[in-house]
Amino acid sequence: MTKTITLAQGNGGQENNELISKVFYKAFANEILEKSEDAAIIHGGELAFSTDSFTVSPLFFPGADIGKLAVCGTCNDLAMMGAKPKYLTCSVIIEEGFPVRDLEKIVRSMKKELEVNGAIVVSGDTKVVPRGSVDKIFINTTGIGEVLKKGISSNNITKDDLILVNRDIGCHGATIFAAREDIDMSSSLESDCASLYPQVKALLDADIKITALRDATRGGVSAVLNEWSKQSNICIEVEEEKIPVSDEVNGICEMLGFEAAALANEGTFVLAINKEDAHRAVEILKTFENNSHATIIGKVTDAHLQKVILNSSWGTKRFLDTPSGELLPRIC
Amino acid sequence: MTKTITLAQGNGGQENNELISKVFYKAFANEILEKSEDAAIIHGGELAFSTDSFTVSPLFFPGADIGKLAVCGTCNDLAMMGAKPKYLTCSVIIEEGFPVRDLEKIVRSMKKELEVNGAIVVSGDTKVVPRGSVDKIFINTTGIGEVLKKGISSNNITKDDLILVNRDIGCHGATIFAAREDIDMSSSLESDCASLYPQVKALLDADIKITALRDATRGGVSAVLNEWSKQSNICIEVEEEKIPVSDEVNGICEMLGFEAAALANEGTFVLAINKEDAHRAVEILKTFENNSHATIIGKVTDAHLQKVILNSSWGTKRFLDTPSGELLPRIC
Repeated sequence: MTKTITLAQGNGGQENNELISKVFYKAFANEILEKSEDAAIIHGGELAFSTDSFTVSPLFFPGADIGKLAVCGTCNDLAMMGAKPKYLTCSVIIEEGFPVRDLEKIVRSMKKELEVNGAIVVSGDTKVVPRGSVDKIFINTTGIGEVLKKGISSNNITKDDLILVNRDIGCHGATIFAAREDIDMSSSLESDCASLYPQVKALLDADIKITALRDATRGGVSAVLNEWSKQSNICIEVEEEKIPVSDEVNGICEMLGFEAAALANEGTFVLAINKEDAHRAVEILKTFENNSHATIIGKVTDAHLQKVILNSSWGTKRFLDTPSGELLPRIC
Repeated sequence: MTKTITLAQGNGGQENNELISKVFYKAFANEILEKSEDAAIIHGGELAFSTDSFTVSPLFFPGADIGKLAVCGTCNDLAMMGAKPKYLTCSVIIEEGFPVRDLEKIVRSMKKELEVNGAIVVSGDTKVVPRGSVDKIFINTTGIGEVLKKGISSNNITKDDLILVNRDIGCHGATIFAAREDIDMSSSLESDCASLYPQVKALLDADIKITALRDATRGGVSAVLNEWSKQSNICIEVEEEKIPVSDEVNGICEMLGFEAAALANEGTFVLAINKEDAHRAVEILKTFENNSHATIIGKVTDAHLQKVILNSSWGTKRFLDTPSGELLPRIC
């Protein structure tokens, strides 16, 4: 590992994983942490518990703002464990001189998104730091959810499962990049930022056999698939052309030199669903806004354990690796 | 309120309270939040839940560092509700270029302090932001505690209670000020930063009738007493000379122009204990390290509801107000 922290160590990919395991997991070692789920399962399996800090720049962008993001991000981590988001804490670190009007706008976005989840903020902390000590505002939200369905875990995926995504991928990453570089997208490109609990609830209500769920934030769909292949000791084979990507996102990817599968999302999740129920799950997902491209993208095999294979329509194969390098800092 | 955020709005005092109530409480309004306790009580009264972000500068100072502070701060908020700290999340925002060795040192401090509380970190988040976007490192910890004794609340203090402190006050604030201004204190002055759960546990084990507890962080003992006087609609009368203050802290107070009672603490708490048990509580507190000055400092009356009165040894009286103004930014 390097002697000083690098941007790559916050990318949601390979260097980030290394930092987390060598510094944090090493010191804090315990069974719950080592499961590496989106949220910790505590209190006899009854509750899910997850934290996230948000540093996104710019604060306001097409489709959402840091406030909506801060509620979606933490509530989604809970939903990914089959939990209903219930209680959130909200801790803000604000730079001296930040406009109160912007703070109010951010808090209103949070409130609106809390309602979508049926969650409430029960505790908070407000710090103000001198100019230059923080760039505008950072928000931490930490949430507790009530587990509705026990046993959802990224460690239990098998060949009985198919791999799905709920919508076209990469919109959040592409939107932030475009906003930051002042690229004029007169198109409809906007962040996918959304609360996923309603979709999870609908799947649970329909008794869909869910093995694992994970929202594809930093590191994108690539990071999720690679984490799953390692955690469940499986090979995931994905049909490249099945992965839904919009023309706008493809355009940004060309400029950035990234794969869409490595771009961050904030309302896009990957599902491992028992084969029996996978098609039914797709139909349920499609009933939700922006999910018309929900689809099965791959299957589980034992071709190359702990690896993700991309099969192209021409019959070629290549590994889809965990993203590495700087990607986009301050994406969330 | 001002149009832009000021340092005073993060001081733990009057302007801070105004910002919290006008922006956050207004939007997030719910019964639990409005109780304004150190931690929210949830899940049928079984669990306490609290968050804190730490921005202290410098990161390392006599008596502690940001890591120890981050664990003590959140665990203490849980302990103040009669809860045993159990599960913590840890979310760090690190500036690009930060030394890995310092990060490891901070994480080791956290681990050591977790052990004092018998708590574990079960979930985390690591963000790295470009140089200049944050000053070195900020840490958020959010904790869940198991309530050992229900009903401890700052809203229930009556004339049946006496007001205590567990030790001499103001050490954390004075230490940070001295460290930042490079004042050479060849003395023994160091932060009081410590986990308070062991002291609370000892009081509960001895069946002490605890009405309320609050750690006197930003805004110090003054802020706590004033909050309590409003929350319980009482007058708190304090004997000024009974408040234990060390010579070193008094010295720093003179330089700063602050009252010791307005200085931040990180291992000092105020207790409202039923008269019957107050002396026994002092004896128990005194058995703990650094607590030789534990004492009863005041009583509850109805002389001036929602006010705190300081009685001097010469028989004069004055109000001790909620601190206001900038105090010390980045104290915790």
